[in-house]
Amino acid sequence: MADSQSPAGKYDARTHKMLTFHDLVAKFREGSDTPRALLERCAERIAAIDGPIKAWAWLDLDLARKRADASTARYKAGKPLSPVDGMPIGIKDLIETCDMPTEYGSDLFRGNRPIRDAAVVYFMKEGGAVPVGKNVTVCLGGGDPSHTRNPFDTRRTPGGSSSGSCAAVASSMVPMSFGTHARGSTIRPASFCGTYALKGTFGAINRQGVYSAAHSMDHLGVIAGSLSDMWITARYSARHAGGDPGCPGLYGGDAPPKPLKPARLIRLDTAGWAATPEPVKALFEARVRALQADGVEIFSRKDDPGIEAYERLHAQSPQLWTALYRFEMRWPLFQYRDYDKTKLPPRLLAGLSEGDNTSQESYRAALIDREHFKSAHDELAKRCDGFITLSSAGPGPIGMDQGSAVFNEASSILGCPSINLPLFTHEDVPVGMQVLGPLHGDEKLTAVGRWIAEDHFPRKA
Amino acid sequence: MADSQSPAGKYDARTHKMLTFHDLVAKFREGSDTPRALLERCAERIAAIDGPIKAWAWLDLDLARKRADASTARYKAGKPLSPVDGMPIGIKDLIETCDMPTEYGSDLFRGNRPIRDAAVVYFMKEGGAVPVGKNVTVCLGGGDPSHTRNPFDTRRTPGGSSSGSCAAVASSMVPMSFGTHARGSTIRPASFCGTYALKGTFGAINRQGVYSAAHSMDHLGVIAGSLSDMWITARYSARHAGGDPGCPGLYGGDAPPKPLKPARLIRLDTAGWAATPEPVKALFEARVRALQADGVEIFSRKDDPGIEAYERLHAQSPQLWTALYRFEMRWPLFQYRDYDKTKLPPRLLAGLSEGDNTSQESYRAALIDREHFKSAHDELAKRCDGFITLSSAGPGPIGMDQGSAVFNEASSILGCPSINLPLFTHEDVPVGMQVLGPLHGDEKLTAVGRWIAEDHFPRKA
Repeated sequence: MADSQSPAGKYDARTHKMLTFHDLVAKFREGSDTPRALLERCAERIAAIDGPIKAWAWLDLDLARKRADASTARYKAGKPLSPVDGMPIGIKDLIETCDMPTEYGSDLFRGNRPIRDAAVVYFMKEGGAVPVGKNVTVCLGGGDPSHTRNPFDTRRTPGGSSSGSCAAVASSMVPMSFGTHARGSTIRPASFCGTYALKGTFGAINRQGVYSAAHSMDHLGVIAGSLSDMWITARYSARHAGGDPGCPGLYGGDAPPKPLKPARLIRLDTAGWAATPEPVKALFEARVRALQADGVEIFSRKDDPGIEAYERLHAQSPQLWTALYRFEMRWPLFQYRDYDKTKLPPRLLAGLSEGDNTSQESYRAALIDREHFKSAHDELAKRCDGFITLSSAGPGPIGMDQGSAVFNEASSILGCPSINLPLFTHEDVPVGMQVLGPLHGDEKLTAVGRWIAEDHFPRKA
Repeated sequence: MADSQSPAGKYDARTHKMLTFHDLVAKFREGSDTPRALLERCAERIAAIDGPIKAWAWLDLDLARKRADASTARYKAGKPLSPVDGMPIGIKDLIETCDMPTEYGSDLFRGNRPIRDAAVVYFMKEGGAVPVGKNVTVCLGGGDPSHTRNPFDTRRTPGGSSSGSCAAVASSMVPMSFGTHARGSTIRPASFCGTYALKGTFGAINRQGVYSAAHSMDHLGVIAGSLSDMWITARYSARHAGGDPGCPGLYGGDAPPKPLKPARLIRLDTAGWAATPEPVKALFEARVRALQADGVEIFSRKDDPGIEAYERLHAQSPQLWTALYRFEMRWPLFQYRDYDKTKLPPRLLAGLSEGDNTSQESYRAALIDREHFKSAHDELAKRCDGFITLSSAGPGPIGMDQGSAVFNEASSILGCPSINLPLFTHEDVPVGMQVLGPLHGDEKLTAVGRWIAEDHFPRKA
């Protein structure tokens, strides 16, 4: 393992700033900045620091410049198309694009050129957004690591499977990137890289044209340098691409919700607490005390047998996730194994053997357990303004492992919204706080997240 | 328009027999027939009559012979893999296949070769089924006709978009073919061609790898020469491929349910009755009287204000279907229009302009209407053993039009199971009776269908 490098600088959650977009729009309108100039700053940043990070599977700056110039002209004419007009974005390489390759991080799909964009990409482009390139994904979103490295310590993983998306946003290469999340693939790397991220309510953002091997738990992930950009992008995408067909799509206004101080939060251990090192636990406990000191009531399993009952279901979430996954992933992964198993990486291939030993009856049993878990979540969500827990059991590990998703499987099963807030620093790298809410409570969750991350959390100037 | 031809013979619902599979399995086991011999009979039939029908977009008899030989060897060894081992099947060309082209009936996809089979195809092959080829589909499942012709009168449409699947099964080229259904694409052509067909409960059979432009209303269709083969195939597919991820999949036993005499049925006009010619209405009315004479209670809107309220919702189903469709189809069809609109056929292209003038708010309003309709259906389903109505407003029209889906949109919106029973003959071509049931009531619906079509309906020897 090479020596530690910090291409994005030494990390401190209290001072770290990422590239943001929403605050530039007024400058675009008045002419003191332009989308083209913003794109050039992104391009310079990528050129300067991506060498050791490797966040990009594909870059097309020429194409991006054409789009940025068109956007610049629209602002000059006083006619931007939308709140995302001119926004440079990354796109995880599990998401189809018609003008850039879509390789799914897999040798099976080298040079794959779909004739279409995924729904969110299509409608973001219709709104004037400027795709810069494709962000590295773990191969087929599976268990094997990507080659992307953590921007604050290149010995460490950025997490996966949205490795490149989180690394690129964390290091201010772009203000926003789309990821995906079926287990922990958005919230985990956001925690390890220190970005904001939304894994919204299941189906709230259209997933058509996005690779999935656990389709009942998969979500679009919106990874951004600010909660405002996160919300603007999520809401714009859902408004125009819709949610999944049959779903009403992300509820809320087009503008980011104002910060909302929660009256009470439920603090959860989930399945992850037992796996968390003491110093990271201490960071979280200190933040809980600070929230209490700020006047937020915090309840936990010690206070309420209902929370205890719900925590016991959380403790089973890794097994439940696996029971659902092993039936769902058989297609398309069995197909890809049959097509050319030499092109599948070792952990993914090993995991497929679990799918050989499952049945519809086992899957139906897992669906019954899921309904129970969802009922408990719905009930407890009525008692609070959100749930808080860690986003990961510590920072991204050193080495070629994408880290544990033990804090993330529950919200993937539940389909409830989850946000990562980059509040902690451990060993000079980020760890996130996770805030969960009720189904369709994405907007309020974002408002609560804004209060915690922007009003409550003490940032240095 | 050419003169009428009847390559599959003169149609009479009372005497028409299609190729069946389930009754051959005992012969395969005892060695008096083999899957290879069955395949050769299919091949001969296709060679003899498909010229004017044009049910196939692709045939690969060499590949099918290899699979049939392997199946024959398994039966000889006393080790068939499943109840579908050796079954020759057709596959609608909206369904991905890894060893045959998948062209979606569209010039945009000429020569398209996916690396994977759709989930149902994969698991049917794992069970030893023998794909014979790809059945013609209407271009991208849209409004323009395919070139397939009705096997009982080549001046007429076989209906669409599962044109080739229904034409092939109706004329005994194969005992079963997979279709799809988002508006009327399985039940309508089954009615026009005189096959049995199941459009099951929404999500009950895995749709992954199947093209869809109205994903919240799309279904796999199982088109067969008998209700037994229909059930065996549907249940086998759902057992192994699962339902859609997150869904429990088709409930019921592996063997076809025994015929079940219904105590009471609700007779529906739906939106279609007003569009139905008098002689076809008379055929249906005569069948209602015959069911009553056989001891089945039949209720209608005249008997119960609840049914009347439900009928009023049915009357709105064409508008509701369109409101849902016009938002959902924007992806991928807008993409395909952008990619090369000269390759899209005229009606499909004209329909896309509706998508330019819709919004998430309109779609959400339609989802509210859908919930109301579903509630009414659930409530009324508790009062009966099934709903009966026509499957189409008469036989397939003469000319290049795939006919009206006015009797089919409701069950596409509701996601409730629907079966076509080939009970009527009008102008020497088929018209079907449709039987609808509650969500997840597919097995009982099939049992009721068996009683009506096999026990009640007077067939000549």
